[in-house]
Amino acid sequence: MITLEQNICPKFDKAIHILGKPWVGLLIYLLLDGPKRFHTLEKQSGISARVLSVRLKELEKEDIITREVFPEVPIRVCYSLTPKGRALDGVVDAISTWAESWVVKESSE
Amino acid sequence: MITLEQNICPKFDKAIHILGKPWVGLLIYLLLDGPKRFHTLEKQSGISARVLSVRLKELEKEDIITREVFPEVPIRVCYSLTPKGRALDGVVDAISTWAESWVVKESSE
Repeated sequence: MITLEQNICPKFDKAIHILGKPWVGLLIYLLLDGPKRFHTLEKQSGISARVLSVRLKELEKEDIITREVFPEVPIRVCYSLTPKGRALDGVVDAISTWAESWVVKESSE
Repeated sequence: MITLEQNICPKFDKAIHILGKPWVGLLIYLLLDGPKRFHTLEKQSGISARVLSVRLKELEKEDIITREVFPEVPIRVCYSLTPKGRALDGVVDAISTWAESWVVKESSE
């Protein structure tokens, strides 16, 4: 059997796998604006704290974001994009351009 | 509570929702090469027939692909990109460029 790995550039496939997870595009979009605290990301995205936490951990593991802890009272945790994450601005731009031209705001249903 | 809809461009959000589903990027990538039969997409992607069928129906509903049936024996069904789908070439290019620079082929795990 011919598998995906044999036919498609594995790097592209891995990128799609990272970017295709729910909320990843949105989180990158929000963080391109600058570092943000967990609570701010939660409010601006509308993602549940539990899902947001999982997604941020995955993105940290992929070296797309970094997590900084400031030992203040109360403790402050900040998320920001790494160079690898910031390099996604071209992808976010391309999606924005396409969306602006082709996506209807409300589904016709 | 501040929701996603109030903060983020709804068109971008909808685009991410369409593009973020598993295999969508890969299917667009394959179809940018030209129209393909179901069986060819199945072989080249490695996606199960059941999942592939669901995803193609969703993309058809979003007007990203069209499905053409040729009443031959055996029946021939061909999938191709619509203008809206072909316009995603910029997105696929941006992802490819990013992947080429930043994605490691094999995870370090």
